[in-house]
Amino acid sequence: MTDIDRLVGLLAKLPGLGPRSARRAALYLLKRREALMEPLSIALTETARKIRTCSVCGNLDTTDPCALCRDPKRQGDVLCVVEEVADLWAIERSGAFRGRYHVLGGTLSALDGVGPGELRIDQLVERAKDGTVREVILALNATVEGQTTAHYIASRLQGVRVSRLAHGVPMGGELDYLDEGTLSAALVSRQSVKDTPG
Amino acid sequence: MTDIDRLVGLLAKLPGLGPRSARRAALYLLKRREALMEPLSIALTETARKIRTCSVCGNLDTTDPCALCRDPKRQGDVLCVVEEVADLWAIERSGAFRGRYHVLGGTLSALDGVGPGELRIDQLVERAKDGTVREVILALNATVEGQTTAHYIASRLQGVRVSRLAHGVPMGGELDYLDEGTLSAALVSRQSVKDTPG
Repeated sequence: MTDIDRLVGLLAKLPGLGPRSARRAALYLLKRREALMEPLSIALTETARKIRTCSVCGNLDTTDPCALCRDPKRQGDVLCVVEEVADLWAIERSGAFRGRYHVLGGTLSALDGVGPGELRIDQLVERAKDGTVREVILALNATVEGQTTAHYIASRLQGVRVSRLAHGVPMGGELDYLDEGTLSAALVSRQSVKDTPG
Repeated sequence: MTDIDRLVGLLAKLPGLGPRSARRAALYLLKRREALMEPLSIALTETARKIRTCSVCGNLDTTDPCALCRDPKRQGDVLCVVEEVADLWAIERSGAFRGRYHVLGGTLSALDGVGPGELRIDQLVERAKDGTVREVILALNATVEGQTTAHYIASRLQGVRVSRLAHGVPMGGELDYLDEGTLSAALVSRQSVKDTPG
């Protein structure tokens, strides 16, 4: 096996790259050795060396506690609970949340043998008891597993407000293409635009 | 900019990965540090250090001459001319060619200012004169640029047989979806299946 074959094989393991696009990516790298291949190899080496799981919230970062947990400008009284680091990144991109996070590391699943002990639920319960946390937002996926997990977590939390993300019509979404569940949730949670006078 | 942002930015430059899939790939790597991230960083470093352009045929390999040029089992009397290394890889995957290659590094293009001097055409003419080469196969893309380049190269080659790839119906191709040019080429080059008796 040549060096190039090995590189193609490793690139093909990345999500979104199959064998064909991995070959294309390898060739693209080989032709841009100084501009891309060497910087990428350095970035991988450096990040692999420094990356760690934040002992406070479960985020991945090159420092522990992570940059979000260390940021003094973030509100410490609201915790946003997510399944995975990818979900945390997605909420950060929205720019709509300025509190702190708690990454569970998955969802409860009897089939896959994931119980509360496999997730960072005990740590969440502890964090919620520290006196500063007033609200816990359960930002779990709107799937059966996500909602089961949210339900279980809500039952474990005491003395704090527990909320969940709103269901509704996605921005740019067309009603005709929306499933019935989302539509009925959007109807039930309809918001007032103009109050009746008097 | 954090290390993770830098890694995502570099991954997003790969063909086939946009910003969204680059984030997904970065997270995938971060979660598989030992199994994938470190091997990939080593493979990139090693290959970037060793990669060179073959001085004989223009292929990319970790040795010069490349493995194909050094292989004594390959026929030295047939040269297959391709535009890019990717085309050489594609023909190698087919397993249908056991001769040697010549990579041009592109096609002639008046618009982009690519003349014969920018491609490895002089080297090809030299190689074809060495006494062992009997046939040159022009395996260029069936595009205007590819065919213009093939035409020019054919005019430069003397004393050797010059051929090109056959046009026709692709394997698994449906006639209904085929363009007229390919169909008429396939008709003109039709092959006998059964000779009339006598």
